[in-house]
Order: sequence, then C-alpha cells, then structure tokens
Amino acid sequence: MTGSSGVGADGADLVLRGRLVWFTDDPESLGSAACRFIGDGAIAVRGGLIAAVGAAAKILAGPGAGLPVIDHRPNLIAPGFIDAHIHFPQTQVIASYGAQLLDWLNRYTFVEEQKFADPAHCERVAAFFLSELLRCGTTTAVAYCSVHPQSADAFFAESERRGARMIGGKVLMDRNAPEKLRDTAETGYRDSKALIARWHGRGRLGYAISPRFAMTSTEAQMEAAGALVREHSECHVQTHMSENRREIEAVLQVYPDARDYLSVYERFGLVTERTLIGHCIHMSESEWARMHASRAVAVFCPTSNAFLGSGLFDWASARKKDRSVRVALATDVGGGTSYSMLATAGEAYKILNLNGQTFSPLQAFHAMTRGNAAALGLEDRMGSFFAGAECDAVVLDARATPAMAHRMETVETLEEELFVLTTMGDDRAVAETYVMGRAMKGR
Amino acid sequence: MTGSSGVGADGADLVLRGRLVWFTDDPESLGSAACRFIGDGAIAVRGGLIAAVGAAAKILAGPGAGLPVIDHRPNLIAPGFIDAHIHFPQTQVIASYGAQLLDWLNRYTFVEEQKFADPAHCERVAAFFLSELLRCGTTTAVAYCSVHPQSADAFFAESERRGARMIGGKVLMDRNAPEKLRDTAETGYRDSKALIARWHGRGRLGYAISPRFAMTSTEAQMEAAGALVREHSECHVQTHMSENRREIEAVLQVYPDARDYLSVYERFGLVTERTLIGHCIHMSESEWARMHASRAVAVFCPTSNAFLGSGLFDWASARKKDRSVRVALATDVGGGTSYSMLATAGEAYKILNLNGQTFSPLQAFHAMTRGNAAALGLEDRMGSFFAGAECDAVVLDARATPAMAHRMETVETLEEELFVLTTMGDDRAVAETYVMGRAMKGR
Repeated sequence: MTGSSGVGADGADLVLRGRLVWFTDDPESLGSAACRFIGDGAIAVRGGLIAAVGAAAKILAGPGAGLPVIDHRPNLIAPGFIDAHIHFPQTQVIASYGAQLLDWLNRYTFVEEQKFADPAHCERVAAFFLSELLRCGTTTAVAYCSVHPQSADAFFAESERRGARMIGGKVLMDRNAPEKLRDTAETGYRDSKALIARWHGRGRLGYAISPRFAMTSTEAQMEAAGALVREHSECHVQTHMSENRREIEAVLQVYPDARDYLSVYERFGLVTERTLIGHCIHMSESEWARMHASRAVAVFCPTSNAFLGSGLFDWASARKKDRSVRVALATDVGGGTSYSMLATAGEAYKILNLNGQTFSPLQAFHAMTRGNAAALGLEDRMGSFFAGAECDAVVLDARATPAMAHRMETVETLEEELFVLTTMGDDRAVAETYVMGRAMKGR
Repeated sequence: MTGSSGVGADGADLVLRGRLVWFTDDPESLGSAACRFIGDGAIAVRGGLIAAVGAAAKILAGPGAGLPVIDHRPNLIAPGFIDAHIHFPQTQVIASYGAQLLDWLNRYTFVEEQKFADPAHCERVAAFFLSELLRCGTTTAVAYCSVHPQSADAFFAESERRGARMIGGKVLMDRNAPEKLRDTAETGYRDSKALIARWHGRGRLGYAISPRFAMTSTEAQMEAAGALVREHSECHVQTHMSENRREIEAVLQVYPDARDYLSVYERFGLVTERTLIGHCIHMSESEWARMHASRAVAVFCPTSNAFLGSGLFDWASARKKDRSVRVALATDVGGGTSYSMLATAGEAYKILNLNGQTFSPLQAFHAMTRGNAAALGLEDRMGSFFAGAECDAVVLDARATPAMAHRMETVETLEEELFVLTTMGDDRAVAETYVMGRAMKGR
C-alpha cells in the first residue's frame, strides 16, 4: 500500500535516547521473551527511518555518531500507538448521553455527521483530530470518514501535512440513515474509486473501503463494495459487526436469507485478510471459525463497548487455539470515550477481567504497537523498532500525575510500570510523539 | 457527629461567583426539578459557612456586600464531591496487576498495608492522600485506615490540618490476614475506643467503626464491633459485602450457620442506618429487602468493580420501589483506579449501561454531592448550597482538555455539560476546590 513518494523524504536525522521497549513477537504465546527492553538505549534515525537500534553507548559511537541526540531518560520510548478503529466525524459526538447503538446513531451521530458536507468544517475538525491523536501518542489510525468525499479529503490532507501514516475511507451508506447522509450504490462506488486514486499510496496514506455496516447498505451497495474490494485488493476494508444484540436482529431482518451476520459480508466478498471488523462481541463459534479462515481482524473497542452498553468482548474465544482470530485494539471515538490508547488498554483490562480473563501489560503494549501493525499487515515497516522501520515513537512518563508519581515509588519491574501507564495513564503520560523522527507534540 | 470546636472557626469570608449548580432533592424521582442552576450566581461565605446563595446581583448588593469576590465564571461551582468508600493505605496498591478480590488482597494489599506500622510512612502518605483528594475536588471521604491506630491518627491529623470533613477508622481484622496485620477482638475494640475518644467530633472529623469484612474477623471480633456500634451510635460503620462470588462462598464457609452474607453482619448488630456497605453486587432479594428495612447504605464502586472483575452493580434492583435501598457512590481506591469522582461517575454510567440501565448526569452529580451527603446522614450541613451549610465546593471547567473544549463547542444544555464532565473529565476539570470557603488546590 505504499508509494515511494514522500516516505522519509522530510523525516528527521537524529538519535532518540531513553529506556526503549518494543516487541519482536506476541507475548500471548511467548511471554516476556517477546519483549525487548534496553535501560539506556538509543535509536539512530536517518531520513525518518530507523538506521539502528541498540544500547546507547554503541549507537552513539557508531551509527548515530554526529547526529543530534534527544535524551528522554528516564522516560520510556515505545513504538507509536496504532488505533485500529476511530470515527473522524465523531469528535463532537463523544460523550453523548443515554443510548445504546441504534438510538445513539440516530439521535447523535447521524445528526453530527451531516455537518461534514461543509469542507471548511471538515478541515477544521481534521486539524483538531490529528493534533489530538498525536497528543495521545497515536501515530497511525484507521478512520471512518463521513459519507462525504470531502471529509476523506480533509482527513488525508491533514494527515499528509503531519507526515503520519493514516488509513481512512468515506463510509458507504445508502439506506437507514437521513437522506443527507446517504450516497447510492453508484456514487459510493465512484467516489471511493476517486478517493483511492487521489490518496491511496500517496506518501504514507492508505485507503480503507468502508461499508458502514450491513443495515445501512442495500444489497446493490454491498455488491459495489465487493467490486471495490476486488478491484483494489491493495486497500483495507473496514466495517462493523455484532456490536449490539438489537443491531444483530435488525441486520438479520434486513438480510432475511443470511445464516448469520458475518455471512452478509462474506456473500459480497468483503471478508479478507485486509478486513477490519469492529466489535465482534456477540459471535457464534461458526463465525469465529470463518473469521479465522479468512484471516479477517476483529477489532476490540473497550471504552465504546462499555459506554454504549454493548457487551464484553471475549478475547479468549477470539484467540481459541486452532481457529485463532487476529484481534486489534481501538478507541472507537465517538462511541469510545477517550482518544488515548493507554486509557483504552486500561479499559480493555477491566472488560476482560469482568469476563474472567486476563490482559497483561505486555499484551496491552503489544496490542497497541506491533499487534495492531500486524493486524494492518504493516508489521514489516512499523509498530516495532528495527533497522528500516519508520520511526514513529511515543515517549512515556509513568510519573506524569501526582497519583502516578506516588504509585511509581514502589514499582520495581517494567511490567508494573507498563501497567501503571495503562491503568492510570492518559494523554498526560505522553511526553512526546515522534512521526518519522520528528517531534509532533509542540506543533 | 459534630463538636462545635473548629467548625467555621478559621473558615473564610468571601463571595464565590460562578455558574452555580446543586440539588435540593433526588433527580431519580424529581428529574430536573431536583436541580438548581443559576447562570450568574454567588455564594456569600462567612466563617466558612454559606450565609446566602442566589443571583450574583442580589448577593453582591446584599449579604455579600463588602466581601472579596472570587469570580469563577464561566466555570461551574458545585458542592464539593463526597467519596463514600476509599482505602487510605492503598495509594500504592492502585494499578496492581492481574487478580480478583481475594488474590488481590493477599498478593498486594496485605503486603502494602504492613508499611503503615511506621508512623512516618502514615504521615507521608496521609499528606499525599489529602492533597490528591482535594486536587480531584473531593472534600469529604469515608476512609478505611490500616489495622494500625497510627494510620488513623495520621489520616485524622492531616484531615484536621486541611480543615476537611473526613470520616475514617482503623480496620478490625483478626484472622485470614498476615500476622502483622491482625489485631485481636480485644485490642481492636480498645484501639477503636481510643480513636473515637481522640478524634470523633473533633472539628469536622468523624469515626467509622470498620470491621473489614466477615472473612477477616472472628466471631469474637464481630461481637466486639457490635459492642462498639451500641456504645457509639454517633459513629458510622463501614464494611464490605458481596463483591465477588468466591468471597461470598468463602464467607459462608467461615460462617456456616449464616443464611446469607448480610445475616453475618445483622447477627452482630452492625447493620444500621449509619452503616455503609461496600459493593453489594451479588445480592438476593431478601438481602435487598433487609437493607431497605435497616436503612443501611449500599456503596457502588464502579472503577473497582470493573478493575477487579467483580461484576456489575445493579442500581435498579437496589432502588426497586417499595424496598428502595440507599445507595452511595465511591472510588474504592486502590481496588478502584481513579481518585476522581468525575471519572468514577463516568465509569458508573458504563457499568449501568452494560447492565441495561441508565444513569443521568443529574443523577451522577446528585450522587457525588447531596446524595452521598444524605447517605452519610449529613445532608443538613453539606452536599448542597443553602444558608448555614458548610461551604465545601468544587469549581469545574468542562473545557479543561483540548478534547473537552472541542466537544463543548456543540454543547447547549447544562445536562450535556455535566455529562461531558463525567465522561471525559478528571482532576484536570477541577479548577479549584474550596473547604470552608478556603481555596485548597494551591496549598
């Protein structure tokens, strides 16, 4: 999904020094052996790419010699966070009161998204959106834009301005929504094609074909979405599924011949290894098995699932041996309540503990970085620290608030520190965010 | 529970001006009619007590004339938050990984609490604890101290120093805990008596007789606790119940003759209208009915219940008509993950929505202020704005973070603003905290 243009062109040349932490494998199977930690480490960055990573003494004397050094000790430096599911037009829907999914869409979301017909509104919100993501340490996000192509244009233009690797797409939605939020099978197809031509592979940007969910697309539109997927296998696909029990019932009324929810998407060729399916809370064993076979990704959105009362994601079921499904972690703002992946991981822990399951700090940090990169099929260029990777990174201060600093007095291990960060941390714990080696928080 | 000494003696004389919001009744039954709002309001404070509250023009020309005016517009001013259940010796237990209740107590809490044998440690943590509460806008808390009388001494001394209305007590615990954390029926009784004599009714301080929970007290200690309750009916009582299913099983093994968990406390005379019972998640209809009859209070601790995977509190069951149980809201740090009552109310909304129930922003703000004051039997002196009340107040800025400020652009009603505060707010949204009219955040 990459073009050569832009990547690294204006990235920085420097050395980042700090306590480095990253993953080379999945701690779910390998435990702490999947984690790399260097107490005094450094990353030599050239043209925004990682030239070398290792002990500071070695990097400073070798591949980083002569470069300016930013010393972040005693803070941690981790790969930039990746948010696998977020809604760009919902920054003013977050914290809307008193509803579960379908009501919430009609009462709040479908009202707010109409404002994105106005390109000036799109641009203003895009500037806020990118600033907020970067402030929270999120360097890559997979975003739903509104039905309006101009919303995707604004999202991509602003992402390009920041140099960030961002993925997004305009939603396809031709029924069960207000008239002003509906495209048609034909315009949705045509507008998506034009956006793909304009943005996909430009610099670090990627397109996601985005049928919102089965209820809001006619069969004709689902067929058009399937055509887009066939014609643009380089793109991601994103949609929603099995978030809420009433939603499931409604979908099966709209698609009376479907054996289950997943089969609606399967029928139109939308379930591929590049497909991200938000929520997947109320799943049958057969659906999990078919998700496994397709290599599609289930996206766990804990703050949203709690805020909308949708239910408890079942990570253990998703990852069941022999038919293990790929899982990603995401904020789902504005159903989600925080832009912070740290806060999101903290809520993931709670949801899973309520479900009798555990979620270790290593699993959490893996999910936010290398895990989500792998879910996007981008682990060969991001989500971890290795020579050749794009240098997106987050600097973390586990003493960012008085309560965290007090708690840290008794912390002895890296795992404990990471757990303090996810349980008590938020945007304040992000001391700096680097995109292609460039510091972004002050910008 | 009050002595005349100290109250108001060094309170401030001033006028607080801002957008005032408080409650005169319970919005659960009365809706918005229970809420008072004055867009440009003022509170005249004399000797730390509210002399008059009303429209700013009227107060400034009348009862507040000549007093210094602190103008907090456009921020809200609400009564100070009340936290009905928190553990003073768990400030360094918060964010301890990977356990449900009983394991968590043994692996983390019972290790940490042993440090409170050292009075210097108690004093240092008490200073942090009071600062953190006030930073979060909490002006009254009901705290468990450790088994050591010196922990209660430190908690009360520090509370007195801040002039805050605080309630606490040393835990009674004579079994199923490490030796160094055990008192005996006799020493627990004697130490509690001495603490009551030393602190209860001194200035704004109150004592809570604190048998930790049924598992950690022998029958002899429960009898001694019952004697304390009979001899000191002016004190509160606090304990834990039905937080976790394994805990319930363990308690019924320890008390094999008990018909249910509540009956253990009933048998020893511990269930009164001044009794605060933490959690009450897994309750029988009979237990709710007896809670109603006794007027004891069930304390809902949402961040803790989620973090420890305990379960979803059932507010609707608790409040069922004809046998409605009094309910309070609390952080339960260190099982809870935040000192902020705003964040706690946000998590309460999620827990209740996951349980198919609603929790309006008016209910949330009522619970944090007048509701919790009423749960403590203190609504005649705090939790609301009226002439004669102690002037504990919190100044709230719903634009405290970039994401909140952005969201507030589209907010039109007070309810929406309050919901933004609970869903997205934390200590940052607390611009100032007043205790008896004295600004505390800078201290």
